[in-house]
Amino acid sequence: MTISAEQTDYTELLAKRAQAASGATGAAFMRFSPDTVMLVAGMPDEDAFPLEALSKKAEAAILEAGKTILQYGQPKELTEWVAGFMNKEENLELKPENILLTCGSSQALSLACRAFIDPGDIILVEAPSFGGALRTFRNAEAKLLEVAMGEEGMDMVALEQKLAELKAQGLRPKFIYTIPTFHNPVGVTMGLADRQRMLDLAVEYDVMILEDDAYHGLLFEGEMPPTIFALDERRGTGRVIHTRTFSKILAAGWRLGWVAASPKVVERIQSLKDDGATNLLGSYVAYSFAKTGELEAHIEKLVNIYRQKRNRMMSALERYMPGEVQWSNPQGGFFIWLTLPENLNASTMLKKAVEAKLVYLPGAGCYAEGQGGKNNIRLSFSFVKLAQIDSAIHKLAELIDEEIKAARIPG
Amino acid sequence: MTISAEQTDYTELLAKRAQAASGATGAAFMRFSPDTVMLVAGMPDEDAFPLEALSKKAEAAILEAGKTILQYGQPKELTEWVAGFMNKEENLELKPENILLTCGSSQALSLACRAFIDPGDIILVEAPSFGGALRTFRNAEAKLLEVAMGEEGMDMVALEQKLAELKAQGLRPKFIYTIPTFHNPVGVTMGLADRQRMLDLAVEYDVMILEDDAYHGLLFEGEMPPTIFALDERRGTGRVIHTRTFSKILAAGWRLGWVAASPKVVERIQSLKDDGATNLLGSYVAYSFAKTGELEAHIEKLVNIYRQKRNRMMSALERYMPGEVQWSNPQGGFFIWLTLPENLNASTMLKKAVEAKLVYLPGAGCYAEGQGGKNNIRLSFSFVKLAQIDSAIHKLAELIDEEIKAARIPG
Repeated sequence: MTISAEQTDYTELLAKRAQAASGATGAAFMRFSPDTVMLVAGMPDEDAFPLEALSKKAEAAILEAGKTILQYGQPKELTEWVAGFMNKEENLELKPENILLTCGSSQALSLACRAFIDPGDIILVEAPSFGGALRTFRNAEAKLLEVAMGEEGMDMVALEQKLAELKAQGLRPKFIYTIPTFHNPVGVTMGLADRQRMLDLAVEYDVMILEDDAYHGLLFEGEMPPTIFALDERRGTGRVIHTRTFSKILAAGWRLGWVAASPKVVERIQSLKDDGATNLLGSYVAYSFAKTGELEAHIEKLVNIYRQKRNRMMSALERYMPGEVQWSNPQGGFFIWLTLPENLNASTMLKKAVEAKLVYLPGAGCYAEGQGGKNNIRLSFSFVKLAQIDSAIHKLAELIDEEIKAARIPG
Repeated sequence: MTISAEQTDYTELLAKRAQAASGATGAAFMRFSPDTVMLVAGMPDEDAFPLEALSKKAEAAILEAGKTILQYGQPKELTEWVAGFMNKEENLELKPENILLTCGSSQALSLACRAFIDPGDIILVEAPSFGGALRTFRNAEAKLLEVAMGEEGMDMVALEQKLAELKAQGLRPKFIYTIPTFHNPVGVTMGLADRQRMLDLAVEYDVMILEDDAYHGLLFEGEMPPTIFALDERRGTGRVIHTRTFSKILAAGWRLGWVAASPKVVERIQSLKDDGATNLLGSYVAYSFAKTGELEAHIEKLVNIYRQKRNRMMSALERYMPGEVQWSNPQGGFFIWLTLPENLNASTMLKKAVEAKLVYLPGAGCYAEGQGGKNNIRLSFSFVKLAQIDSAIHKLAELIDEEIKAARIPG
């Protein structure tokens, strides 16, 4: 007789990190009915996927390189392309040894922790920050300490104060984790002076910088400052672990990202990557698409699409939002960050939003120490259809307006 | 001015596990010239890759399911197919909740450690065992203790003795790690009675079993006993974490494997899988190939190919090997295990073999406690071309014969 699998989870045998491990990144946005307007996740626009081109590339890849991409190993084509691409973009001299392909930037962050984080080690994070990264850091048993955000990303005065305060207690963080470009969730971009300052502080306090540049390249207007990684390469200190991804610029589901760092740091991180290799099929198809220049042309196309959506959402926010609501003005990326009046709770309001077929990300999950973000909302303009943005923001504004009015009624 | 990346590895900042982490699985077999006969790695036969069929499937997959497989998420198609396939094979009642797709069985093993292994926790391993798994366990900071092999895999008397001995010291291992079927590196298969016995001992001593079934399905003749996982499912204790892979039966480079376990254990393991998802492109192409029955037909074809290669290698061993050499007789899988006279050293002999354009795996790397295997060789018959086997074994036999003679000359 076959008994269906029983439910023992052997809790007493679990590793400490597994006792309280929270769900994997990405599960959250699978729960809603298809007619719900998704303002929640950092998902790319699926109408923009270059399906025809990639389909042909995939067909050709298996015929032309099948004996390599079906076999064990890690062919160097995409790694070399990435190094060359970064060199061209920022006038660097990276070699393939500076690059490690990873299973999305999620795995890049996870591996950086495996290499540098012992249980209890401190990671400084922006408040707010990317919830998926916070989960990864918690799974790595790191202690997360918040650094306040300023107008352009992490506040450098707050960072120095925190570093000095910890030093006085004999504590040294392992990482400063930052999303300096089109910040997740706030949308802002750190200027050159602050990037230089963060590097100075990292050197002074002997800390590594973990630079998450997932939205790199999605610039709608103006100029981009150099990455902190590029600034660090020019100084030659090798103190930055830079993570990137193809998820926003090509295909999220292929789980392709990379680490750029000094060769020695890459070697250390690679030695803990015990999944054999990074998806040779997807890597080779991405390489086939990139080497012809099609990827760069595709990124230009994406910039136009996301700029239009950002504009549409900004206009709708200006048109419909109650005067008490504030929001960020992103120069690129996927997100706008809303600040509601302090007495509103974005998490409890979410239930009403879902009933109204609308999902956003409540801000609270973006705070490492669990206090902030109660009256914040992250809106993603990347996935939602352009034509739905105006009505979705209208609906959201009405909901917020109702909440503001309800909060005024004496209880 | 751009300074090329410098070489600081920030050793003093590294996590403990990273201080001594050894290279990633799979790097070892990339170093030899193309005319070297590769008897070393568990690489599949690349002439058997179904390139035409997979090329068509990949082309169609992106056109027909691109909006899903280029997006975030983890579509359930392949997971459901795997559950159904295992149910059919072993008359089980698994649901998709019993299955977690992983980046090869390498990641499956790594995740099992992340879920259950705290630094210093004990894993019992066969002596010898799979070197890649031993590296993964060491990277997880586990303490590895060897259990001797008998004629059919791990010796159950030795296992009980080790468990009792540890219990007397107040120690309880977390895992018994076993490769019961077409063992890596020895090639033998554990019989039903020992599988039952291992389960009994796991229950008695409250230990989990980590069953690595990478070579499952590659049976050349005779009958297969049930997997330990299936035996455990029938008892309903949910004590086995079973790992499998598409690497040997479809495409190693796509990094597709799975964990089968009780839903609660799967949930725990999944919560630590922080790479976002498992390669949606490869998963969907594998699913497309599997759902039509083509995968099962392909496995039959592979069995014929590998049986023929095994036969060729066994004949050559019988024909050429000196009388002092012994070897295993695998009923399936990829490997034959050679035992040379005790005064020979397979690791030092490797240099001569490489000069003779021949590579094998010295046995020493397969032992967790670093003592055994000095006079052992793992031969892989999977990758080498059929026509090369006879001459390769002839050459190896001559080398061994020379070593035997040299060892006889009084020094």
